[in-house]
Amino acid sequence: MKRGVYNFFGGMAIYPPRVIEEVRRDLLEYENTGLSIFEMSHRSQTFRNIIDKAEENLRQLMNISDNYHVLFLQGGENLQFSMIPINFLRDKNRPANYIVTGYWSEKAIKDARREGQVNIIWDGRDEGFTRVPKQNELQFDSDAAYVYYTTNETVEGIQFPMIPDVGDIPLVCDMCSDFISKPIDVTKYALISAHAQKNAGIAGVTIVIIRDDFLQDIPDNIHTMLDYRPHVEKSSIYNTSPTFAIYTVMLMTRWLIEDIGGLENMNKLAQQRSDIIYELLDKNAGFYKPHAKPDSRSLINIVFNLPTAELTQKFIAEGAEEGLVGLQGHRSLGGIRASFFNPMPMEGVHALRDFMLRFHEKYR
Amino acid sequence: MKRGVYNFFGGMAIYPPRVIEEVRRDLLEYENTGLSIFEMSHRSQTFRNIIDKAEENLRQLMNISDNYHVLFLQGGENLQFSMIPINFLRDKNRPANYIVTGYWSEKAIKDARREGQVNIIWDGRDEGFTRVPKQNELQFDSDAAYVYYTTNETVEGIQFPMIPDVGDIPLVCDMCSDFISKPIDVTKYALISAHAQKNAGIAGVTIVIIRDDFLQDIPDNIHTMLDYRPHVEKSSIYNTSPTFAIYTVMLMTRWLIEDIGGLENMNKLAQQRSDIIYELLDKNAGFYKPHAKPDSRSLINIVFNLPTAELTQKFIAEGAEEGLVGLQGHRSLGGIRASFFNPMPMEGVHALRDFMLRFHEKYR
Repeated sequence: MKRGVYNFFGGMAIYPPRVIEEVRRDLLEYENTGLSIFEMSHRSQTFRNIIDKAEENLRQLMNISDNYHVLFLQGGENLQFSMIPINFLRDKNRPANYIVTGYWSEKAIKDARREGQVNIIWDGRDEGFTRVPKQNELQFDSDAAYVYYTTNETVEGIQFPMIPDVGDIPLVCDMCSDFISKPIDVTKYALISAHAQKNAGIAGVTIVIIRDDFLQDIPDNIHTMLDYRPHVEKSSIYNTSPTFAIYTVMLMTRWLIEDIGGLENMNKLAQQRSDIIYELLDKNAGFYKPHAKPDSRSLINIVFNLPTAELTQKFIAEGAEEGLVGLQGHRSLGGIRASFFNPMPMEGVHALRDFMLRFHEKYR
Repeated sequence: MKRGVYNFFGGMAIYPPRVIEEVRRDLLEYENTGLSIFEMSHRSQTFRNIIDKAEENLRQLMNISDNYHVLFLQGGENLQFSMIPINFLRDKNRPANYIVTGYWSEKAIKDARREGQVNIIWDGRDEGFTRVPKQNELQFDSDAAYVYYTTNETVEGIQFPMIPDVGDIPLVCDMCSDFISKPIDVTKYALISAHAQKNAGIAGVTIVIIRDDFLQDIPDNIHTMLDYRPHVEKSSIYNTSPTFAIYTVMLMTRWLIEDIGGLENMNKLAQQRSDIIYELLDKNAGFYKPHAKPDSRSLINIVFNLPTAELTQKFIAEGAEEGLVGLQGHRSLGGIRASFFNPMPMEGVHALRDFMLRFHEKYR
């Protein structure tokens, strides 16, 4: 790959050179099968070994116990916005509790409302989605079917530093953008979902981790592909799996285990990377204006504004000229967003820091 | 790739060496962007150009006119089994008409029934799914919401030689296994769907071609991701597209245009390939027993039986030893299935023919 080009897009990760080389090798022939990795039938033993290994890696990284199923589905988090209430709110006559902290958690509500009552128990909109709630601001319906929240809001760059304590209510989360970026206690959750394209693979596969007992009370009037149970029963090959995307999950999780050393180490790197940029923002706070309140700052997506729209455009354009691409904020918020997904090398962070210092010198 | 290994699986295609080399090149860097093809944001202009080119290639190959939308979705044909009735049968108070010719068209019915009345207007089960109906055997409900059929039954190896004449009723088809394998008259259809992994790309993207006027009467009580309209409005990037899978569609359709010369030529090749094997089956009909009636034989999936279960197992095992892999029939039917998707080279067909002749000599 061309040196010095770094991808800060919020939607699509960068990939470790090791993974790129493994894919290039396996495109010619996968493990002495005589066939390209593209050609692996989802019903072949070779693919079963790949998907089992991807699952095993995730279980090892996240310390997932046997009472959880690990599924590889399609449709992204947007389909989870529907599948979660279809499976767990439909016909329940109990409300779901949603914590609204930004663009994504707010978006999840629209389709949930098709299936039952949705109570928004905290809403950060009036504060411009600049922070997550504290535990003492959260009051749940005691009969809630589940509590739903987004661990990291990719658009606004705010992240929960803790797991909300919901007592005995099933806790459901969208973990798309900080999935396998730090150790978490899976036992606190009834369901975790995350598309792969940020930290875990390429776009086109969504990982769902679901506690077995949470499956017991699903109604039977659900379209087959939208019902979690057929996917559980068939170990994620109810229908043709996105085989190649799942293969990339196997590679990315192996890289995380073998080359990074797991989630503790990954979290340290994420902390170091984001510290460098947040420190720079704080030191030049008259010029660079961070969006998130300090106690809610995301280690993954660093969102900030510049004094004028003209400077914002210059920042994006001059950054791109220097090989720092994808720095534009999400279309709903504008400004600047630098996303540091798992494989972002420290050189990329240093390149961004140096550019930001020069840009500040030039235009302050 | 290792010479002499050919993939006859019914689920996953083989890929032209040109496409494999293009992917290997673009994994390192895509068109002077400094980024791997894996890293392309679905919101980038680079990816927009890729998806636009994939669509343009399909429009050119299939002669698709402007009143049809071309969508790239997720979930495979199994999700189409639900999306089609959710969009076009729900709240209609009119029946859908399904033609049942095999495993896949039969499977489509279960979820369709969740949305309204399904009338099976022809059912080949009693004849063991060995043929498709003739036009004069088909009687449609005059008020049918749509007629649904499967152009090629991958499991049984039977294929419609003609497009059923349904008059003014919207015609909907599952074209998964013979998509872009021959010229078809798109204007006869209201909706065509096909997953990519057989002839058009890798698993994880489903192509839906839908006539604009068919979208007018969709109810508004549909979950966003299951409603065709948001995907039409956002030109297939309502949510994160399976970018890499769509990129492979662009490559495979380009190969079909530039290296094969389009669908007329592809169809000639498909005819030549299947003629070689069907001729061999007919000449040795006491040993090799073709499943399909002659007038319904598939050019794509050639399904046949051997005199005993023991010989079937030997055929599969000895074939695999010679590099002919994936010859086992579908788990629902047993026997032998040889699938010839678009990129199957004539050498693969000759290798299969020679093996079959030797096997016949050895065990007859």
